[in-house]
Amino acid sequence: MPKAYNGKILRVDLTTGHIQVEEPGEIVYRTYFGGGGLASYYLLKELKPGVDPLGPENILIFASTACTGIPISGWVRFTVAAKSPLTGAYGEAEAGGFFGPELKFAGFDAVIIKGQSPKPCYLWVHDGQAEIRSAEAIWGLETGPAQERIREEVGDPRARVAQCGPAGEKMVRYACVVNELKHANGRTGMGAVMGSKNLRAVAARGTQRLEMHDPEKMKELGKLQSELIASWGPSKVMRNLGTPNLIMPLNTAGILPTKNFHTGAFEGAENICGEKMRETILKAEEGCYACAVRCKRAVEVPTGPYATSPEYGGPEYETLGSLGSFLCIGDLAAIAKGNELCNRYGLDTISVGVAIALAMECYENGVLTKADTGGLDFRFGNADAMIQAIHWIARREKGLGDLLAEGVKRAAQKIGKGAEKFAMEIKGQELPMHDPRGKTGQGLSFALSPTGADHVEAPHDTPFAQPGPMLGKIAPLGLLEPVPARENGPRKVRNFVYLQYLWSMFNSVGICNFTAGPVWSLPLNKWPEVVYAATGWETSLFELCKLGERTVTMARVFNLREGFGRKDDTLPDRIYEALEGGALAGKGIDRKEFDEMLTLYYEAMGWDPKDGVPTRGKLAELNLYWLDEYVKGKR
Amino acid sequence: MPKAYNGKILRVDLTTGHIQVEEPGEIVYRTYFGGGGLASYYLLKELKPGVDPLGPENILIFASTACTGIPISGWVRFTVAAKSPLTGAYGEAEAGGFFGPELKFAGFDAVIIKGQSPKPCYLWVHDGQAEIRSAEAIWGLETGPAQERIREEVGDPRARVAQCGPAGEKMVRYACVVNELKHANGRTGMGAVMGSKNLRAVAARGTQRLEMHDPEKMKELGKLQSELIASWGPSKVMRNLGTPNLIMPLNTAGILPTKNFHTGAFEGAENICGEKMRETILKAEEGCYACAVRCKRAVEVPTGPYATSPEYGGPEYETLGSLGSFLCIGDLAAIAKGNELCNRYGLDTISVGVAIALAMECYENGVLTKADTGGLDFRFGNADAMIQAIHWIARREKGLGDLLAEGVKRAAQKIGKGAEKFAMEIKGQELPMHDPRGKTGQGLSFALSPTGADHVEAPHDTPFAQPGPMLGKIAPLGLLEPVPARENGPRKVRNFVYLQYLWSMFNSVGICNFTAGPVWSLPLNKWPEVVYAATGWETSLFELCKLGERTVTMARVFNLREGFGRKDDTLPDRIYEALEGGALAGKGIDRKEFDEMLTLYYEAMGWDPKDGVPTRGKLAELNLYWLDEYVKGKR
Repeated sequence: MPKAYNGKILRVDLTTGHIQVEEPGEIVYRTYFGGGGLASYYLLKELKPGVDPLGPENILIFASTACTGIPISGWVRFTVAAKSPLTGAYGEAEAGGFFGPELKFAGFDAVIIKGQSPKPCYLWVHDGQAEIRSAEAIWGLETGPAQERIREEVGDPRARVAQCGPAGEKMVRYACVVNELKHANGRTGMGAVMGSKNLRAVAARGTQRLEMHDPEKMKELGKLQSELIASWGPSKVMRNLGTPNLIMPLNTAGILPTKNFHTGAFEGAENICGEKMRETILKAEEGCYACAVRCKRAVEVPTGPYATSPEYGGPEYETLGSLGSFLCIGDLAAIAKGNELCNRYGLDTISVGVAIALAMECYENGVLTKADTGGLDFRFGNADAMIQAIHWIARREKGLGDLLAEGVKRAAQKIGKGAEKFAMEIKGQELPMHDPRGKTGQGLSFALSPTGADHVEAPHDTPFAQPGPMLGKIAPLGLLEPVPARENGPRKVRNFVYLQYLWSMFNSVGICNFTAGPVWSLPLNKWPEVVYAATGWETSLFELCKLGERTVTMARVFNLREGFGRKDDTLPDRIYEALEGGALAGKGIDRKEFDEMLTLYYEAMGWDPKDGVPTRGKLAELNLYWLDEYVKGKR
Repeated sequence: MPKAYNGKILRVDLTTGHIQVEEPGEIVYRTYFGGGGLASYYLLKELKPGVDPLGPENILIFASTACTGIPISGWVRFTVAAKSPLTGAYGEAEAGGFFGPELKFAGFDAVIIKGQSPKPCYLWVHDGQAEIRSAEAIWGLETGPAQERIREEVGDPRARVAQCGPAGEKMVRYACVVNELKHANGRTGMGAVMGSKNLRAVAARGTQRLEMHDPEKMKELGKLQSELIASWGPSKVMRNLGTPNLIMPLNTAGILPTKNFHTGAFEGAENICGEKMRETILKAEEGCYACAVRCKRAVEVPTGPYATSPEYGGPEYETLGSLGSFLCIGDLAAIAKGNELCNRYGLDTISVGVAIALAMECYENGVLTKADTGGLDFRFGNADAMIQAIHWIARREKGLGDLLAEGVKRAAQKIGKGAEKFAMEIKGQELPMHDPRGKTGQGLSFALSPTGADHVEAPHDTPFAQPGPMLGKIAPLGLLEPVPARENGPRKVRNFVYLQYLWSMFNSVGICNFTAGPVWSLPLNKWPEVVYAATGWETSLFELCKLGERTVTMARVFNLREGFGRKDDTLPDRIYEALEGGALAGKGIDRKEFDEMLTLYYEAMGWDPKDGVPTRGKLAELNLYWLDEYVKGKR
């Protein structure tokens, strides 16, 4: 066995105030690694099935990884995980920024938080120490002032603060966790879990750098990564335009989600695209810890009703979609304002936009009226209504805000009158801004992600579908042939399964999609070398893919024991129906062919095709036989 | 896509004499690679199910690999494959030596041989050319004279000759293919298939060296491999004692197969061990093409009834077992003579020994008498009887020879009177010299090998079972914890499945067990680099393991369509029963626990636990969906 990786886990019981440090040992770290892998390991071991996600029995985990914070572009992310109050299923969201590395510098791989604080509090983690401090003075503050106050209190302006914001305090079911005011663990309502625990923030600061197993090797790999980023076309696009670069190509392809998935082309696309942002409101290109890509945007709208401050960053592609094309809003300043508000309140911009779209479609169909919307004209395209709705949702105000704060699934059920068909959700989580009708692998990704519709828990398939440099990048997996984006069938399933191993593994190793996914700088075969240089483990792409598969399987088991099954692995009816406009007008997804792909997927994963229950043999193979007790009654 | 690997396939129809050359293209080569992978691909595509293995419809494939013959120790092997006349199942056997590389030098990755020659013939393959030549003058000759004659006829003393020998001509069901008189594709009766086609030999010669994609990288890896072999303890043991080094440790551990698996300790072990061979009859250490290990033995018994010539090599561990301890024969000279005779006739030494053991046990139990044994006293321990029996078997003489030439399964059925319980076979193939009662992974290996009981189609588990350097060697697969040799259950299945990926892959890439298996010089993570340097494919351990899994699955499908199923994946009754002596006296294999491991294995492989039929999803995942038509009626 190689030299042990010596990570530490911080355990905090907010009910009792008890804090302790645990060293799980090398086998656990190497098998579960960090992020989603380590979090699901502890959740499966220690969380009772069936608990209220917003009750004290839920367990909230902040998890960096054995590699988070190494000096190499893109290996920076950390996970927040718990049972999701939005879906009732496995909850997990990743974020970049600076918090993940700082938690490592502060001496911990992960923080496992149990119980419920009797009063508002925050956790201060610094150089191997941790303390629970009162947050009574910051409770109710927006994220900016709260961060400032915490930094003052702990006496360190470089403390990194991951917090839930006022929306989390109000337990908006899709409240997120924000660090540095602009990097969000966005999905599955992890901010609401913080709020339910009266935990406003985790602040971290460490003065120790990470010890690399092989510093020379790491330096060499970091240099290679930087050179590749500097020379590789997609990296330059990401630097130049950020994720908003996607607006125009997706619009042209007819898969820019528009008007609550009615259509795939938005006439105002040019006004909200990355190029337009660069010409108008872009204030700065920014990046995460140690990253040369610098895909993050800081925008400023200096004056007017949508005046925004650059300290809250700028809208990503997802937000330009969810608060823009999805709502038929072609006003970049309004979207930027909406984005800023979400970061001030701690709201997931995707779920917010999809929730507002539900209300707009209900309104246009007479299912909601001005009596329900606080007197606002809630039509698609009304930017002011969108802005107002964000305030209301974050504060659970005016009936409508409280309703939409529950997420579209619960909201539509409460509205009734057929509103369910306007609710674009899977397992209760709102769909991201990608239309499976143009890329069926994305449909698999949405239907099969354990966190509900999610675009970072499983792969997009478009960049890998066509001949070209991306196909060569995945050749080390044995994926050698192009598979057209709209193809259904076994080849698509094969590609999806292997890419899902990778995407899942990203979230356990802390790798960013934007250095390892579409932008993909370092070749796949270098990844085990990076892990080696960091930890001393002579791993392989095989072991790393198995880590990804293991993590997907653990999340599946989590969901099975909460009562989820094949019935929940589906798409909203609208996605099966034809697109009303754009380049793919008339195209839907064939329900039977899609269902057949699900069957192939389950079987390819070693899961019972009836309900997606992993076989005992598959659990054994993945070193997860200890989970058999949770699913044996389900076969 | 990287630069294409430009291999060629030679197709020969012996019925018509038609010869053609095919270039299957890079995708086929990279997906199926060579050896067992490429052979099973073509057999599944082109061989009709249900054909007589000894009829003209059987297809015989000689397959090197995309890496065979590269200048690096141990990447030297080639495969001969066909439907097996011994088992009726998938037949495959690998050999080292010099033939595999020479076939590559001659311009071909593989030779696919169909039909039946009207007269004895041999195939002469040289520098991109091929011709069918008459073998009437060599038919009936022992291998030595035949090789000499062929070299004379083709006018090249460096022609490498792989031939079936007189035993193959007689279609002894376990006749092997021998190259250089001493390297055997031993198992599953591939020599009998040659005989049935009237094909005595394939002779190859090429004057072109292989073109490496990255010669500098290959040089560096070759140097590293040589340094590791020079410094790594097990390599030194292999050099010093060869495979016979195993006799004493296995005897001490109580798992040296003795007296037809009655016991695991042989009182004459010291007289037949590697150390004794070195002290007495060892003439030279030899090796295969480009290999620094040099584990092969050449022995010489200068005079007496057992006088042997070193040009036929010397007995491996398997032969010391099968003609030695297994028959209670403690006379090294007699074993050496038996080994030489097997190489002269072209007989598999393992099957020969186990066949003789059947006769001896029948004789001692009165099931056979002197009337059946040609008057010989056929007791265990009678070395002369063993020698005589080899002659008879090879020539199918004296009733007994003809009977035993059918293999122990058919022979025991013909003998009747309960002889079946003395027949140590699985799927009709005789067990190698490893006792699963001391290493349950070996039991899985025997029961699950598609070729019947076989020690090189799936892993031994002993060296990987204990803490120590071997465990670290497999850590890149994520196998981090020791699993005791006699443990049953999920951990054992997990280890077995991953190691089977490797072992299966060895046979498709042409890697020798003795540089990659127990001796294991180059670290696992260097293997993809070797493939890259040879072919230009940026592969990974993931892709290579999937190649192994794919090949196992193809062979499974082959067997399913021939009517094999779970009922055939078992061990002889005796192996479940207690060992009668030695360190593990009293130990057997728990039938229920073993059966439970089989279920876990099927499930871990994505196979139906009822009969081991791969699911459609698993076929899709492995890029084998085209095989669904063969098994869909079996689910």
